[in-house]
Amino acid sequence: MTSMVEPVANTTAALVDATVEAAARASGPWAAMALADRARVLDGIADRLDARAGELIPLAIEETHLPEPRLAGELRRTSFQLRLFAQQVRDGDFLDVRIDSADADWPMGAPRPDLRRMSIPLGPVLNFAASNFPFAFSVAGGDTASALAAGCPVIVKANPGHPALSRLVGSLIDEVVTESEAPRGTFGLIFGREAGVRALTHPAVAAVTFTGSTAGGRALFDLASQRPVPIPFYGELGSINPVFVTPEVAWSRATEIASGLLTAVGSSAGQLCTKPGLVAVPEGSPVLTELLETPPVPAGEMLNEVIAAGFARAVEQVRAHPEVRVLAGGRPAETLLLGTTARAVIDDRDGLLHEMFGPATLLVIYRDTAELLELARSVPGQLTVSIFGGRADDTARALLLAAASAAGRVLWNSWPTGVSVTYAQQHGGPYPATTASATTSVGTAAITRFLRPVAFQSVPEELLPPELRTENPLSVPRSVNGAHTQ
Amino acid sequence: MTSMVEPVANTTAALVDATVEAAARASGPWAAMALADRARVLDGIADRLDARAGELIPLAIEETHLPEPRLAGELRRTSFQLRLFAQQVRDGDFLDVRIDSADADWPMGAPRPDLRRMSIPLGPVLNFAASNFPFAFSVAGGDTASALAAGCPVIVKANPGHPALSRLVGSLIDEVVTESEAPRGTFGLIFGREAGVRALTHPAVAAVTFTGSTAGGRALFDLASQRPVPIPFYGELGSINPVFVTPEVAWSRATEIASGLLTAVGSSAGQLCTKPGLVAVPEGSPVLTELLETPPVPAGEMLNEVIAAGFARAVEQVRAHPEVRVLAGGRPAETLLLGTTARAVIDDRDGLLHEMFGPATLLVIYRDTAELLELARSVPGQLTVSIFGGRADDTARALLLAAASAAGRVLWNSWPTGVSVTYAQQHGGPYPATTASATTSVGTAAITRFLRPVAFQSVPEELLPPELRTENPLSVPRSVNGAHTQ
Repeated sequence: MTSMVEPVANTTAALVDATVEAAARASGPWAAMALADRARVLDGIADRLDARAGELIPLAIEETHLPEPRLAGELRRTSFQLRLFAQQVRDGDFLDVRIDSADADWPMGAPRPDLRRMSIPLGPVLNFAASNFPFAFSVAGGDTASALAAGCPVIVKANPGHPALSRLVGSLIDEVVTESEAPRGTFGLIFGREAGVRALTHPAVAAVTFTGSTAGGRALFDLASQRPVPIPFYGELGSINPVFVTPEVAWSRATEIASGLLTAVGSSAGQLCTKPGLVAVPEGSPVLTELLETPPVPAGEMLNEVIAAGFARAVEQVRAHPEVRVLAGGRPAETLLLGTTARAVIDDRDGLLHEMFGPATLLVIYRDTAELLELARSVPGQLTVSIFGGRADDTARALLLAAASAAGRVLWNSWPTGVSVTYAQQHGGPYPATTASATTSVGTAAITRFLRPVAFQSVPEELLPPELRTENPLSVPRSVNGAHTQ
Repeated sequence: MTSMVEPVANTTAALVDATVEAAARASGPWAAMALADRARVLDGIADRLDARAGELIPLAIEETHLPEPRLAGELRRTSFQLRLFAQQVRDGDFLDVRIDSADADWPMGAPRPDLRRMSIPLGPVLNFAASNFPFAFSVAGGDTASALAAGCPVIVKANPGHPALSRLVGSLIDEVVTESEAPRGTFGLIFGREAGVRALTHPAVAAVTFTGSTAGGRALFDLASQRPVPIPFYGELGSINPVFVTPEVAWSRATEIASGLLTAVGSSAGQLCTKPGLVAVPEGSPVLTELLETPPVPAGEMLNEVIAAGFARAVEQVRAHPEVRVLAGGRPAETLLLGTTARAVIDDRDGLLHEMFGPATLLVIYRDTAELLELARSVPGQLTVSIFGGRADDTARALLLAAASAAGRVLWNSWPTGVSVTYAQQHGGPYPATTASATTSVGTAAITRFLRPVAFQSVPEELLPPELRTENPLSVPRSVNGAHTQ
């Protein structure tokens, strides 16, 4: 077929500045729009994406080589996510309204004044889009949706892996913004690494989101922290997502675990932030033989040459380790199984515990439960840790504790790929999984990243934002004198 | 009287490491203690402080030169604060429990798994104590109380201004911890700048709190951000706390405003993070003449020579500005009033808008409402902005909006000194007021700084923490499928 992809030029410095300044001017009016109107813009973007799926998906296929069903599902997830945040905006719970009535007898020893607190938007958010989810973590993805929902203008730095798709999605968002009451500048799109760095260091940018590599993310985190006015950097960098298979199930459920592992490692050619990159099984477990007996899994084409080259380098680093051997696979577009011992990993965490972003995993053989626990306690920060187990015994409890110490999400008899967009989701974890472990980039709690509280002391009713007035005209959930009300 | 103060040696590198490592070992057991037991330790510290007030207050007077009533009130505030956090721990709302039940028809397009999320403690917290509140922002102050409440061990780096008091308070906390079921290492105390830096860069420290100068705080923030594993740095650096007096009340309430200002600037010798350091009044307003007619206010002795020297330097910098003149005061232990124009401030924000930590304020004369608004919109990040006004008119609304953009707390016809410890309090604001504007160091929300969420996916009931079990044995508040429950 004829390519739909035209070259996209890098954004000039002058245009970057103009985009950021337009976002800065839009900050006040966008924050001040009625919650229902703000929600309508998010719903409008969702509707527009769905309506244009027929153009968006073929373009995404051409630029990312991901299969059609995966992209169709991802687009559905993306518009769902926008609508879920629209609902959050209408509900108003994200405002975290707290009201203390004046209290002359407050036991602190001094009268308590009337204090009313709510969260307000931070200002323009710069979003570095990811390569591997061209819809869900890109121009109209979760970071954009949650920042817009919080009341912040968004500037997306497009991922170089799908520039034409980025431009089309950007133009659709722009259409919806323009057709609405939202101010110009509420959404902006820039291209090119230098443009991203320029925006990151612009004084008007108030927060940054990033999904990508550890090296690239850390470099940008450092820039954000070294600004004259440092700003929050919500970066998702890298994760190995260890899977620990206990002796109790390593024999009885070997077939199921081997097949689940191959699916989790190979889907989307392993280019998922939650791909299991380390699987620990006991010595002699049939999981290994099951894996070796399974025909090599076609893993599909990689997103682009940059990603493929990075994957090759990461694999080479692990494979070159004297204690690592190739178990199976490794030809182009085939899942690669590497193998080593738990002792080798524990003794050289820096050498063996880093992400291979692609269809590869490291099978780790442990001798006994003590060694499994030692391994589990030695992993650095992760997005996820999964445990395959049976009874609720001491080993299970100890593994869960180690998992919760290392990761933002802990799974039981489940694979970590597929991150559900929900109220209780936590997609984030200790460094290097993310640079802000107390936050999530998936799920409704993602909105809190772009807010800060302001307390109003003794401000008369008629000067308070409606959310803080005693009559509660918008019926937002509130906490009054320390207790939730609805 | 005989000095109760003996010299306190700086903590050696070996002892710093041992203290941090003890805290790291205590992390798991302290986090795992039942909430009721954790609360009991906080209550126990409060009781011990109250019981020993007779020794603590004289020692504080000797080391800080603050007056007895102020210190007695501060100690009451400190024990109240510990008890309020104990109550928070028992309530369990801080755990932010969210439960999503499994849902095969979740409209995202893929079934929603069972997801249960709660916040867990980060690990050892390093707390750089402040000089100006030897109880409330020092060894047993709000940062320590909220971090212990979150389930984190605490290492306090004592402020050099009150070493003997720090040692005594530390020994009282240590007694209570030892008498309880809490693990050794739950609390530690170190002395000396180098000791603080060593602890800050120790891999086992998970978060830092700081209250002090902008230069010192920024240097430590940079160290925390540049660690191989960066950690959150909750720093309160510097604030001018502007006060804007509208034309509407600048004549009618001039006497009350002048007298309130002198009290706010002079109390505790101006050594309060919320001292108003800039007061804007309209040209010709009698506030200025009222101030000049008031006898010079005795402001009291400064905390120590280091603080006094820093104050003198900051005052000199402002006073040397060609557009600034001395209006009144300025002899030792006397409140200093400097004066300038709004235009001068707007034109040289860097030269005029920095904190003078002591009994001084800058009276700023504005020509008209437009200039007042321009001034209000030009101030950098603040802990507080106060507005003295009358009707709810456009000027009032515009000033409140500018104030909320700049500060974490906005006051109406009130002085910002005296920060109530409550549920809705927000003590924090955009940089340079703090390094983390979304957090507070005062009030119950302070606890969230030391927590991060973990989501448990498809984990069986018997392996879940009790807070996440369906039956809710601890009766913690929860949000289920997006809605609050009690």
